Amino acid sequence: MAHTYQRTIHFADTDAAGVVYFANYLSFCHEAYEETLEAAGIDLKTFFSDNGIVIPVAKSTADYLRPLVCGDKIAITVKPSAVSPDAYTIDYEITRLAGKTAPKKLAAVVQTRHVCIRSDNRARTALPPALAAWVKAQ
Amino acid sequence: MAHTYQRTIHFADTDAAGVVYFANYLSFCHEAYEETLEAAGIDLKTFFSDNGIVIPVAKSTADYLRPLVCGDKIAITVKPSAVSPDAYTIDYEITRLAGKTAPKKLAAVVQTRHVCIRSDNRARTALPPALAAWVKAQ
Amino acid sequence: MAHTYQRTIHFADTDAAGVVYFANYLSFCHEAYEETLEAAGIDLKTFFSDNGIVIPVAKSTADYLRPLVCGDKIAITVKPSAVSPDAYTIDYEITRLAGKTAPKKLAAVVQTRHVCIRSDNRARTALPPALAAWVKAQ
Amino acid sequence: MAHTYQRTIHFADTDAAGVVYFANYLSFCHEAYEETLEAAGIDLKTFFSDNGIVIPVAKSTADYLRPLVCGDKIAITVKPSAVSPDAYTIDYEITRLAGKTAPKKLAAVVQTRHVCIRSDNRARTALPPALAAWVKAQ
Repeated sequence: MAHTYQRTIHFADTDAAGVVYFANYLSFCHEAYEETLEAAGIDLKTFFSDNGIVIPVAKSTADYLRPLVCGDKIAITVKPSAVSPDAYTIDYEITRLAGKTAPKKLAAVVQTRHVCIRSDNRARTALPPALAAWVKAQ
Repeated sequence: MAHTYQRTIHFADTDAAGVVYFANYLSFCHEAYEETLEAAGIDLKTFFSDNGIVIPVAKSTADYLRPLVCGDKIAITVKPSAVSPDAYTIDYEITRLAGKTAPKKLAAVVQTRHVCIRSDNRARTALPPALAAWVKAQ
Repeated sequence: MAHTYQRTIHFADTDAAGVVYFANYLSFCHEAYEETLEAAGIDLKTFFSDNGIVIPVAKSTADYLRPLVCGDKIAITVKPSAVSPDAYTIDYEITRLAGKTAPKKLAAVVQTRHVCIRSDNRARTALPPALAAWVKAQ
Repeated sequence: MAHTYQRTIHFADTDAAGVVYFANYLSFCHEAYEETLEAAGIDLKTFFSDNGIVIPVAKSTADYLRPLVCGDKIAITVKPSAVSPDAYTIDYEITRLAGKTAPKKLAAVVQTRHVCIRSDNRARTALPPALAAWVKAQ
């Protein structure tokens, strides 16, 4: 079952074309990822700092389907999948929720790929057990 | 009565010192301002685009009292005050809410000053009535 | 011939893992795109505002190959290709330049896809001639 | 003698009002600060990570005098002043350089205050000698 994260589009997210700057869609997905990890009991402060093992984003793809404006409400679904003992992907769908004048619409489809490595020599290493369990449970 | 806005610190808000980048405290305050306007029925999309009248931030001051880390929960109070028919200030307090290991603490005190101007010639002009009412009502 | 853009990694680009936040690699590429357009005599202020025609990023893919830290110098190559009369892709390579202790290395490979549409009805429309010439000339 | 830093306004710096988002003026100043430190031989990667001593921004004030748009060229002067053995301020002036249609104008005046503390107990501690020398030399 995918986790769903909701948030509002802020003025700082937009650019001079009047809509959300494209790279910020990826940040919204990362926020959703963080909330999902936290809901699973994983401590974010430790998880995202360098403590011997880091799990950087190795790849991202994004299809930007619709513009988003300041004040829009969005919902993001987060669906991880195991790739190997040291890697996983996450699929996200960003939906603009129905507003006063606009119907609900799919706004973007994003995928990120994450690889677990040792920070000293950047060699691949198995996911920590709590994270491997989280990938499997979603 | 001051409005209160809550949000979580995201990974994207932090910098290589492991804590929130100083300029992002100002963005958090602007988010709180947006939510307060929206709660008063003001349409954000229109309000923050250029439609003849713009109300830019003319001045900001910020005292950064405590670091914030990814996963911290914060609450921001928003308190506007009229300065003149064409200007107002907003006082914000950013409080880090109590976490598993950390007590509740004041994290920053911020003030912004906003001036209403015509976008064609940048001459000062009176606040739109809905906004003047919002400044008075808080 | 690809255009090359150089810039330094700023503290604001980094996150609590001590390296550049993944979504910011895409912003660096957009900066390179902007500089290339400007070098071709295209006015950025007009180009990126909504004046009837907009050319949003419709898709992005990024392979993040190496971390970047505050102070690193990078070079980005920008190579556009026509896809159709109303669309083009841009291929970017981000290279970390040699530093005091680190050799030159490819840090990321990014592609963006851009589609020209009318902002009133979002129907596809042909690229403006100056932009079509830019795509062909690079 | 004040150091001067030049940069171009990027699309990502702007918001839906068509101009630079207010908090980003502070980031531009921090970039200028970084470049000045680097020009003095201070290693940025080490300086801005937590290695026992951190020098966070404790206070900022900013007067936003003029809007900036995508493609504008700006110059920022950086002028530090010692406050005490463990603190200094930096005064910045952001000037929009003359463009095709616009004359040179002062765009913002910013001040930041920096305090040197131990990261373990957050007690104030004297500036490292290289930094104290930098403050004095500018």
